[in-house]
Amino acid sequence: MGATIRDIAEKTGVSITTISQILNGKGSRFSEATRNKVFQTAKELAYKPNFFAKNMVTNRTNTIGMIVPEVTDPFFSQMVKGAEDYLNAHDYMILLCNSSQDSTREDLYVEELLHRAVDGLIIASPNILASNVFTQLESMRKPYILLDRKRHHREEGNIYIDDYEGGYMATEHLVSLGHRKIGIITSDDSFYSVEERLQGYQACLKKHHLSISPDWIMEGDQTMAGGYNATKKLLAATDITALFVTNDQMAVGAYRAALELGITIPDDLSIVGFDDIELAEYMAPTLTTVRQPIYAIGQTAADYLLKAIQNPNEKMANQKMPLELIVRESARKLANKATHK
Amino acid sequence: MGATIRDIAEKTGVSITTISQILNGKGSRFSEATRNKVFQTAKELAYKPNFFAKNMVTNRTNTIGMIVPEVTDPFFSQMVKGAEDYLNAHDYMILLCNSSQDSTREDLYVEELLHRAVDGLIIASPNILASNVFTQLESMRKPYILLDRKRHHREEGNIYIDDYEGGYMATEHLVSLGHRKIGIITSDDSFYSVEERLQGYQACLKKHHLSISPDWIMEGDQTMAGGYNATKKLLAATDITALFVTNDQMAVGAYRAALELGITIPDDLSIVGFDDIELAEYMAPTLTTVRQPIYAIGQTAADYLLKAIQNPNEKMANQKMPLELIVRESARKLANKATHK
Repeated sequence: MGATIRDIAEKTGVSITTISQILNGKGSRFSEATRNKVFQTAKELAYKPNFFAKNMVTNRTNTIGMIVPEVTDPFFSQMVKGAEDYLNAHDYMILLCNSSQDSTREDLYVEELLHRAVDGLIIASPNILASNVFTQLESMRKPYILLDRKRHHREEGNIYIDDYEGGYMATEHLVSLGHRKIGIITSDDSFYSVEERLQGYQACLKKHHLSISPDWIMEGDQTMAGGYNATKKLLAATDITALFVTNDQMAVGAYRAALELGITIPDDLSIVGFDDIELAEYMAPTLTTVRQPIYAIGQTAADYLLKAIQNPNEKMANQKMPLELIVRESARKLANKATHK
Repeated sequence: MGATIRDIAEKTGVSITTISQILNGKGSRFSEATRNKVFQTAKELAYKPNFFAKNMVTNRTNTIGMIVPEVTDPFFSQMVKGAEDYLNAHDYMILLCNSSQDSTREDLYVEELLHRAVDGLIIASPNILASNVFTQLESMRKPYILLDRKRHHREEGNIYIDDYEGGYMATEHLVSLGHRKIGIITSDDSFYSVEERLQGYQACLKKHHLSISPDWIMEGDQTMAGGYNATKKLLAATDITALFVTNDQMAVGAYRAALELGITIPDDLSIVGFDDIELAEYMAPTLTTVRQPIYAIGQTAADYLLKAIQNPNEKMANQKMPLELIVRESARKLANKATHK
């Protein structure tokens, strides 16, 4: 009834052996283009290995637990989608948990997921996890991937970006446009890797022998409302000409704050964001930002986890994901009249 | 170790009996304020009944399958959050599935979820489901809630809004502002209840003896990009002064299309959206829209489903959820110069 591997081979022109390896999470030596083509076609044809047959042999539930801080944040919903697309193509499903950035809930969720006999876990967390979490995971020998910005200095299974580098990149762009008074909106809840983005910002300004006023650094919630409130406070207290907002959701709020204060972006204030959510290119002006490969992070996490489930004695790889500055309209050259020395 | 019902009683001032009923999904006779307070406090205190003990008695997995068309759509992520918050407070977890609006995938997901012995399902679907889906659900006697805009004329467990009424409401607002040439952006994939929103639009214009040109109706994908493309086409071909965009995501794209064409909102073009996603009040200008109680729809679906699991022989209730016009800045009185008769 359903599509077979042969159907996928016919449609893609890829060999059956290769397809089988890719769909079983053992296709890392093939190009990403080939892997994507196979997954895409498997999805289109609704290819599906027999779940029960597989299950009997492997004693697995083919279920992965995934914990994210906030599913309504487009950053995390995109990450979930990347993981889900990959897992579904391999006949795995996701038990999704929303921790609301609370470490107690993370702890409880790990426990619940282990009760439900998931085959592995993906934990995206802004927190230092309770040590209890690791005791549980290790004692049950469950593979897990941490999307935690290397907060736990784990030796394997780290998929991460270099937040320091990203903060530096955003700031460097503003400096290169002639800005000297550059503010930053950070977070009040240790969410994302804001601390390291802040360090990148500080290092970049220092390298250019530019001073930083403590007034230029403002904390806020990692939401539209948080960005709005922090930017309002910051613009009332300073005469900055540029602003690095450490995530794009907050940048949406920053735009509104500027609008209400009669400050035009980018004429009066240049803004650089972080993440490159879909909305970034619909904003007015479109948002210059540091792109994280969000979907690919979810996909890679799923890929590494399935490998670890299939080869429990092999060490998991670590993967640093690339960042890229996406130049759009929200940051521009500082006009002469406003240059500060 | 963990918090008890007594702790919740102490903190809320609500009686232990009441709390127990509310947390067991039998608290519908209490006010929403009381129920919310109890759930909120249970969450804050990380209250958690003993999962295994409960499970042994009930032979349940305490897992709910939830299928949504697209988790990265803020409408659905908000709905998932409403369901999840409610279910977690009752010691249930969600197996989340993303159907990509594809009815074949919906069918497969229902099968997979039943394999995993979920206690019930919440299916948010834009499609007429395969009859196979219902055969499976009925044969396994699994309770389920359809968030499908009553497409299946089921006699119980319908949680819905009146899309016709919503379309009428949006259009009426534009007519009351003096607009006579009112366009509409609909969907090309039967997503949401766009067909009924369109009928509401048509009925309203007819009631006011206003003509509709076929050129004023334009289809698009239910995404930012879809709204952008459809609006560009529509504005190039017509001289409308107002536009009803049948969801807020598309309205984001409509704003960008207008901006690129040098058309100012609301001076040259009034826009009314549908949904009231969080972003609506951050847009420039802020978006006038028809609000759906998205979070509450998710919560209510979870509530009804748990009741059905606990009382399998009782008929499920139906619930029409209220709509509300939220007037912001994107629609305004038609200036005299542009009035068409």
